[in-house]
Amino acid sequence: ASESNLIRATLFPGDGIGPEIANSVKQIFSSADVPIEWEEHYVGQEIDPRTQSFLTWESLESVRKNKVGLKGPMATPIGKGHRSLNLTLRKELNLYANVRPCYSLPGYKTRYDDVNLITIRENTEGEYSGLEHQVVRGVVESLKIITRQASLRVAEYAFHYAKTHGRDRVSAIHKANIMQKTDGLFLKCCREVAEKYPEIKYEEVVIDNCCMMLVKNPALFDVLVMPNLYGDIISDLCAGLIGGLGLTPSCNIGEGDIALAEAVHGSAPDIAGKNMANPTALLLSAVTMLHHLELHDKADRIQDAILKTIAEGKYRTADLGGTSSTTDFTKAICDHL
Amino acid sequence: ASESNLIRATLFPGDGIGPEIANSVKQIFSSADVPIEWEEHYVGQEIDPRTQSFLTWESLESVRKNKVGLKGPMATPIGKGHRSLNLTLRKELNLYANVRPCYSLPGYKTRYDDVNLITIRENTEGEYSGLEHQVVRGVVESLKIITRQASLRVAEYAFHYAKTHGRDRVSAIHKANIMQKTDGLFLKCCREVAEKYPEIKYEEVVIDNCCMMLVKNPALFDVLVMPNLYGDIISDLCAGLIGGLGLTPSCNIGEGDIALAEAVHGSAPDIAGKNMANPTALLLSAVTMLHHLELHDKADRIQDAILKTIAEGKYRTADLGGTSSTTDFTKAICDHL
Ligand SMILES: CC(C)[C@H](C(=O)O)[C@@H](O)C(=O)O
Ligand SMILES: CC(C)[C@H](C(=O)O)[C@@H](O)C(=O)O
Repeated sequence: ASESNLIRATLFPGDGIGPEIANSVKQIFSSADVPIEWEEHYVGQEIDPRTQSFLTWESLESVRKNKVGLKGPMATPIGKGHRSLNLTLRKELNLYANVRPCYSLPGYKTRYDDVNLITIRENTEGEYSGLEHQVVRGVVESLKIITRQASLRVAEYAFHYAKTHGRDRVSAIHKANIMQKTDGLFLKCCREVAEKYPEIKYEEVVIDNCCMMLVKNPALFDVLVMPNLYGDIISDLCAGLIGGLGLTPSCNIGEGDIALAEAVHGSAPDIAGKNMANPTALLLSAVTMLHHLELHDKADRIQDAILKTIAEGKYRTADLGGTSSTTDFTKAICDHL
Repeated sequence: ASESNLIRATLFPGDGIGPEIANSVKQIFSSADVPIEWEEHYVGQEIDPRTQSFLTWESLESVRKNKVGLKGPMATPIGKGHRSLNLTLRKELNLYANVRPCYSLPGYKTRYDDVNLITIRENTEGEYSGLEHQVVRGVVESLKIITRQASLRVAEYAFHYAKTHGRDRVSAIHKANIMQKTDGLFLKCCREVAEKYPEIKYEEVVIDNCCMMLVKNPALFDVLVMPNLYGDIISDLCAGLIGGLGLTPSCNIGEGDIALAEAVHGSAPDIAGKNMANPTALLLSAVTMLHHLELHDKADRIQDAILKTIAEGKYRTADLGGTSSTTDFTKAICDHL
């Protein structure tokens, strides 16, 4: 690719192991001649000890301008969720859908070998409104907000995703038997959108039952769409089925066709800087970014190389029971390209 | 047991397969000479077509007076959760803790063979407040309520349960990184109670992470205590690990030492009256009731007979891949007593 054809993409390596796994992505992308030029910004917990977080206007503008980016893990101190950088990014960039493909990795054995599903999570409202208050001493409440606009938007995204990715079923996950108005509105919106996609099967599954079905037989599901907190819970459950958050990609879709891919695992400060981290989640997230850019060939080539390396089992990082360093694992992937 | 020593217990057979599986309990209890006299009431969806539910004052009084009862499945039409009989019973009887033991059944193979945990769910408030309203067109909200009183009460129950059942760890499940005030208050209460039980280990686990850990390695958990909706979700997930709601007992604990055991599976109208239903969940629930009455020997004897029958595999109902009728399976259990 000549200089002028390069696509600019934002890169937030993040905290802890972030820089190491981001390096792995850069190296593999360059080995695969991906026509991307990274625009790197530091966003994370360091630098400003007063807020324990650091996010500049330039970093946000970079994603807004490039419309595509990749983000490593950022530390989220407990009890700081609402000021957390993850949530700030979702809010500022209006990242309304969080898409997590989850599939069994050939050769990496878990209790499940038949997982192949996509969770699509509403990412801006619901239980994450941040609206909470004490009514009287000892009585607190929090507000779950569901809007027609956000529900239609994520439902539309889910059905469009299903259609363009050759998937034939969308399940809306809810608890409308209890939250009739909020989850009821979410379902109503899903039904409206479903009518526009007669070729896609549509079903509604109560969240408790969904979790039971997922652990019994995940092959029952294809594309799942749901309000924020259920998405948080179910996407992690699904990641657990195939080995954990170290192996699952994630991509956030924002208004104006923004895509910010991200590894959703933690920043693992205990192993940071030790060349031990597993870059797979960030790599597979970067692959979803390539698909978003319609660089499908590059995406497939890189994904194949990652999966082959894991399947062979010769080079695996410690979290997968191996002894390889991040750089050795990365090199093995490059060799498979 | 002489007439005068009989303990009166309320029985709500419920809808669908309810009467058949309740018969199974009655038969097994009588084979095992359990000194219980059943006081049977119909509570369910039939009789009053206007409300699709039927619950008399006498039925409630029966539980209040006897302080112990067993309940079969009751149909819950979707969108009627708040008027559902399950919820009405929880509310009227102030059933504040829902206790669900979940353990792998020897000889009944699932992907997991190492499950042995107890979920204890706050059963009266949280996301089940029923407080919802439309703010403006297209914007609805629902209130999650957490109180110090209910949180302390269920935490106290959980720690006491752990202590009296030889369990050494309590995990509080939450999403306090997002819902800092509501789940934050829940955690604060758990911590206060934890201090009174220095011999029990106490930890806090974020719900998404908890689900991931549960599907990867359920043996990590012992007693879990949590707000209402998380309990709904996690108890079903756990049931899925060992084979489903047809196999897991449940018991509701109310103020004034009330215990209402219940099968939490559905009423399965499709197989009702066909002598096909699996009575295991109701039977094991009845066993928790016996423990509550401190009839531990009877409880253990009956539980052994149930587990042996399932383990042998000769008599299994259709849901477990067998061909036995409810009555044959019941007879097999009686033979093992
Ligand atoms: C870190 C936390 C605030 C976040 C969330 O709850 O959304 C995380 O669990 C995720 O899924 O990205
Ligand atoms: C039927 C439904 C209202 C109920 C609940 O959500 O509590 C059920 O799922 C349960 O767990 O008992």
